[in-house]
Amino acid sequence: MRRAVEESVLLARAYLSRVCEPGSFVLWTFIERVGPVEAARAIRLGVAPLEVMSLTAARRSSADAASDLDAAERHGARLVVPESDDWPHVAFGALERVAGPSKPGVCALVPPTALWVRGHADLARIDARSVAVVGARAATPYGTHVTAEMCFGLAAQGVAIVSGGAYGIDAAAHRAALAANGITVIVSAGGVDRPYPPSNATLYERALENGLVIAESPPGSAPHRSRFLSRNRLLAALGTGVVVVEAAVRSGARNTASHALALGRPLMVVPGPVTSAMSAGCHQLLAERVIGAILVTGWEDVLSVVGAIGEVLPEDGYVPHPAGDLRDDLDQLEPTSRRVFDALLLRRYLTAEAISRRSGIGVLDVVRTLPSLILTNLVESGASGYRVAKRVQAPR
Amino acid sequence: MRRAVEESVLLARAYLSRVCEPGSFVLWTFIERVGPVEAARAIRLGVAPLEVMSLTAARRSSADAASDLDAAERHGARLVVPESDDWPHVAFGALERVAGPSKPGVCALVPPTALWVRGHADLARIDARSVAVVGARAATPYGTHVTAEMCFGLAAQGVAIVSGGAYGIDAAAHRAALAANGITVIVSAGGVDRPYPPSNATLYERALENGLVIAESPPGSAPHRSRFLSRNRLLAALGTGVVVVEAAVRSGARNTASHALALGRPLMVVPGPVTSAMSAGCHQLLAERVIGAILVTGWEDVLSVVGAIGEVLPEDGYVPHPAGDLRDDLDQLEPTSRRVFDALLLRRYLTAEAISRRSGIGVLDVVRTLPSLILTNLVESGASGYRVAKRVQAPR
Repeated sequence: MRRAVEESVLLARAYLSRVCEPGSFVLWTFIERVGPVEAARAIRLGVAPLEVMSLTAARRSSADAASDLDAAERHGARLVVPESDDWPHVAFGALERVAGPSKPGVCALVPPTALWVRGHADLARIDARSVAVVGARAATPYGTHVTAEMCFGLAAQGVAIVSGGAYGIDAAAHRAALAANGITVIVSAGGVDRPYPPSNATLYERALENGLVIAESPPGSAPHRSRFLSRNRLLAALGTGVVVVEAAVRSGARNTASHALALGRPLMVVPGPVTSAMSAGCHQLLAERVIGAILVTGWEDVLSVVGAIGEVLPEDGYVPHPAGDLRDDLDQLEPTSRRVFDALLLRRYLTAEAISRRSGIGVLDVVRTLPSLILTNLVESGASGYRVAKRVQAPR
Repeated sequence: MRRAVEESVLLARAYLSRVCEPGSFVLWTFIERVGPVEAARAIRLGVAPLEVMSLTAARRSSADAASDLDAAERHGARLVVPESDDWPHVAFGALERVAGPSKPGVCALVPPTALWVRGHADLARIDARSVAVVGARAATPYGTHVTAEMCFGLAAQGVAIVSGGAYGIDAAAHRAALAANGITVIVSAGGVDRPYPPSNATLYERALENGLVIAESPPGSAPHRSRFLSRNRLLAALGTGVVVVEAAVRSGARNTASHALALGRPLMVVPGPVTSAMSAGCHQLLAERVIGAILVTGWEDVLSVVGAIGEVLPEDGYVPHPAGDLRDDLDQLEPTSRRVFDALLLRRYLTAEAISRRSGIGVLDVVRTLPSLILTNLVESGASGYRVAKRVQAPR
């Protein structure tokens, strides 16, 4: 049974969502301080702090929360607010933790004031396990193919596919999720009733059936450039991880990638031909070690980063006395490598520190030993550490 | 004027090169201990240590150094030995430093006993600046295209291209170096007179004109499987860095890659379509963070890893008061980021530690700040650190 949100709160947040552009740290801190109802009242009456008043001057008198809520209802949309049960706390908690004053011209990383939501899926469920997929509008056939394969696989595994509803990679991601009968979420830069680009209207309609179209700006809002930029922070926040499929050297995907990093979300990147300008941004992200982007080649890789460990691994047993090549490889290990290997588990990934504890070998030596174990295909690594390679795990 | 190597040493090393298969730690330590002349004498007389005798039993009586040297001369080849002026000390010094007992069935990382060398290039010069390029024999058009572009560019910049003379990536690498009128080195698994595959004989001939064909086994030797494996360590050692262009998941390139890591050589890897099995091994190397492979997309990237910094950078000046977008980006930096940026140089890469010293900002904060500077295209990173991005460096 869902707890209903008080009407006054809904009206206040609808008003606040209309009266100020998304991504304002000033408005967000004001609401946090005095609460949404008092914040809305103070702005309407012109008694809010000067900074807040200047942000809201243009629309504070004309904004009509009741009419926006009516329009939303006509479009089958609802307003989800932090006070709602289905507010995505995991996603937006990350924004809260990093919230800080915006730099000039740059969207601040703050939670949205409210979300306008169309569609049947449960936002709280999406919050638990989803991947944001971003990339070029001018995607190549390679990019759309890889996106389709990846998103179909992820959606079939119950991972919600979050993207921006644009041409190219976005559309390929949403379509693949729909094809898999999975959940997809379009995070729109304009209102939930304003598909953009308009020719993707059918895609938006389809997304509603088994997913969501969500927007920070109220119904009727046009997708301005600044709203695309503030929208990108929601993409990054709503994904348990962010995947960049194709991106030119300077691109919006890079903007979303930087948000992902700021939010502590894993940033996954698909490589491509070095001859393709549409992969150049991806390679740049991968080449910059300090960014820490994770190279992924398919849905299995993505799942090993964002999914619960062990969830999709086939049931398999361990052969303690393997035959042939494998036994040779194991026999050839010198004692330190062998102790490191013996400390590993079959399914769960262990960190170098855990391997060190289990093997009694110093962490530095563990880290020095692992590369050769990986190169001889005895060990494989995932985002959370190392385990016995699949080939050592024979079927029962 | 070159110092001549004593005839007795040449004869001894020619004999040792014939009498034992490449990559024996036992033989190498024996020669190191007693010298090549005494080692050859002891083996021939059957008075060497038991371990050495068992390694050399098959050929110790039949081996005929004078005849091998004659054969070499007929093929226009010479014997280069550690006592020669043109012995590649940089390359093989790395093998010496890591030398250790071989594991069963695995080639030990030891320097060669001697090298049979055909061709006009100077081995000592190659030692200073070269790149080993390895990859699949069953290369795709993508792989050979990328190899050709990369190796042409590197060879034109005076970097010697070292590879194995095989089909696919190897052949594309050699051909591109030749096309650029650059230096190329074929490291043959058989004798220098035995092109392998035989259909690459013309490529071998061309390589002699402006490069080298070198082999560890004496003339006439067939390219056995074990010789391919021991040859791979020479490829890794002879390159200032190793580039893997295309590789299947289990491949010889992986073997060379592991040697490169063991030798402390930078391992560079070219990504490709995730849909291509021939790039799967490359992506595996790039995805394993602990391996530390460097993603490269063209010759410029490779040069920034192996070349002397600044050598190929265009002459360019710095615009202290840049206009437009760039000024905006700089103005938006918060104080820490701005101090980190101001500590950077235009051409020389600085490590995070050096930036910390110059800026007075702690290393950890420097490392935390760099990703956002890179993502806003203000800073770029190379193998040896960070510098002001090219776009900030306007032409004079």
